[in-house]
Amino acid sequence: MEQTITLAHGAGGKQTNDLIGGIFKKYFDNKYLTADDAAVLPPPVGRMAMSTDGFIVSPAEFPGGNIGKLSICGTVNDLACMGAKPLYISCAFVIEEGFPVEKLDRIAKAMAETAHEVGVSIVSGDTKVAGKGQVDGVFITTTGVGEILEGVNPAGANAEPGDKIIVTGDVGRHGCTILLERDRFGMEANVTSDCAPLWNAVNAALEAAPDIHVIRDATRGGVGTVLYEIADQSDVGIKLDTESIPVNHEVAGVTGMLGLEPLYLACEGRLVMFVPAKSADAVLAALHSSEHTEGAVVIGEVTNEMPGHVVMTTEIGTETLLPPPSGELLPRIC
Amino acid sequence: MEQTITLAHGAGGKQTNDLIGGIFKKYFDNKYLTADDAAVLPPPVGRMAMSTDGFIVSPAEFPGGNIGKLSICGTVNDLACMGAKPLYISCAFVIEEGFPVEKLDRIAKAMAETAHEVGVSIVSGDTKVAGKGQVDGVFITTTGVGEILEGVNPAGANAEPGDKIIVTGDVGRHGCTILLERDRFGMEANVTSDCAPLWNAVNAALEAAPDIHVIRDATRGGVGTVLYEIADQSDVGIKLDTESIPVNHEVAGVTGMLGLEPLYLACEGRLVMFVPAKSADAVLAALHSSEHTEGAVVIGEVTNEMPGHVVMTTEIGTETLLPPPSGELLPRIC
Repeated sequence: MEQTITLAHGAGGKQTNDLIGGIFKKYFDNKYLTADDAAVLPPPVGRMAMSTDGFIVSPAEFPGGNIGKLSICGTVNDLACMGAKPLYISCAFVIEEGFPVEKLDRIAKAMAETAHEVGVSIVSGDTKVAGKGQVDGVFITTTGVGEILEGVNPAGANAEPGDKIIVTGDVGRHGCTILLERDRFGMEANVTSDCAPLWNAVNAALEAAPDIHVIRDATRGGVGTVLYEIADQSDVGIKLDTESIPVNHEVAGVTGMLGLEPLYLACEGRLVMFVPAKSADAVLAALHSSEHTEGAVVIGEVTNEMPGHVVMTTEIGTETLLPPPSGELLPRIC
Repeated sequence: MEQTITLAHGAGGKQTNDLIGGIFKKYFDNKYLTADDAAVLPPPVGRMAMSTDGFIVSPAEFPGGNIGKLSICGTVNDLACMGAKPLYISCAFVIEEGFPVEKLDRIAKAMAETAHEVGVSIVSGDTKVAGKGQVDGVFITTTGVGEILEGVNPAGANAEPGDKIIVTGDVGRHGCTILLERDRFGMEANVTSDCAPLWNAVNAALEAAPDIHVIRDATRGGVGTVLYEIADQSDVGIKLDTESIPVNHEVAGVTGMLGLEPLYLACEGRLVMFVPAKSADAVLAALHSSEHTEGAVVIGEVTNEMPGHVVMTTEIGTETLLPPPSGELLPRIC
């Protein structure tokens, strides 16, 4: 095969088939993967979940992952947040003419490995090649279909006063990683993205406590944006215990120097869960024995006070409002 | 709302919600459309079909449609080709900073109208904004889930000698339209895209004859590429009756002047069907009384001779090989 992607790879002819065979089929191979216009699949039983997400991260490769891993994690985690076991994923690529084939190979390989970890099948794909300068490197859109576990019903409007708020690991690593890949700011920090597929952990948590009220993945906008969203959707107040928020010390160093709030840095492998107080210990135990969520901790609780707001409290009892999301991604990471 | 798309529209905060509410919810509104991470849906019964397609057409608006209409037609038609009733569609947008909001409004409106025509619900979406120059205008990826009709099984490998080959209307209009939008070549031709959602027509055809062997939509690469694909996948020969291939006279004029083969120009609302001879009349009757397929005709048949090849015959009996697809899109239209 050529060393770089050409327009002919997107024309739907022989070169497209070579690309599909040489890279995508090689890694994605499974009994459902189709060469026809659509994959033919056994449908989910009960309630079906469907979610889509587009990925335009630059650079396409970064410490801890690449856009391929990210594109599977994003959709797997969106399904997981609904309590849905991911069954099938489709992926659509838009690739810039001249993109290195070996880089595309690494991206596809990461997609396959990530999908394999949570047992989801990549069943259908599409490849378009855009002219040089018409797209920045590679964009990937993944769409997932999942089967919602019976008897679970996590949703953004379900948080209740008294709920414990759990975050499944240290916050802001992905955003900080991309930021440093773009500009080192003269710093030596060694940070890797938290990018991870979280279905297995969610499955364990829901088996331990099917009554989890809310599950959200903190991606664009970070944990802070999720907290404000839930405070708004559930019309409740949120009180955070500032000292308990886990932040990697390298991330803390970078954000301290740049004046950024780690709660507003993107994560790609962190969930925020709102759990009835009586179930919190069982959920924590399940998360601690699952991969990617060993560092889960309670960071606060839901209150009746100041609905729609997030208050931060310190050990010595001072209280301050977490500034609401600005609507801008700071730093801009996709 | 602002007049142009800004980076904040893609940041996942308030402006993103304004954009979703002001445009996407306004048009896509239905009981399944979700604000959560994934839509919750009743699953298909029996066999499920899943298909994805990315759209990067430039210009985004053209006579006969726009990228929004195209993005729904493409996925609806891919599902229809499997004999699947389209149930749910998700759509992911990547929009360039500075893109006009009113243009996005027209695109979303066309998506909603096209989806409505075939009864498919747009259930889930994603919006990313790329920096100026990072993407050319707007890219849309749609993914569809459908329910395959019981007892039907069209597939690319199912063509058999004796099958009649039907094309559902005149060929090459979409490719010709985009070509002229890019460069008039000093011509006055007035051509509109054939872009159309074809599920209702396929449904009627399959009700008339569940034994249709192959259904393919002739998109990138046109009817000629589909014929070579089926000749290859089914290991059969194809004999075309050259005079019977329907070509709009304006398209014929343009392709004649530019030396292009209309069979290799993209369509976005044309199907190629391979039908057992005994069912051909019933299928034609069903297509003639459906919207978008009134002009369906038999253009040839499947033979035992020269497997893998497409032969064109004229009224006076001369035979010539249809040149195989080059692998390049000529003209390049996406």
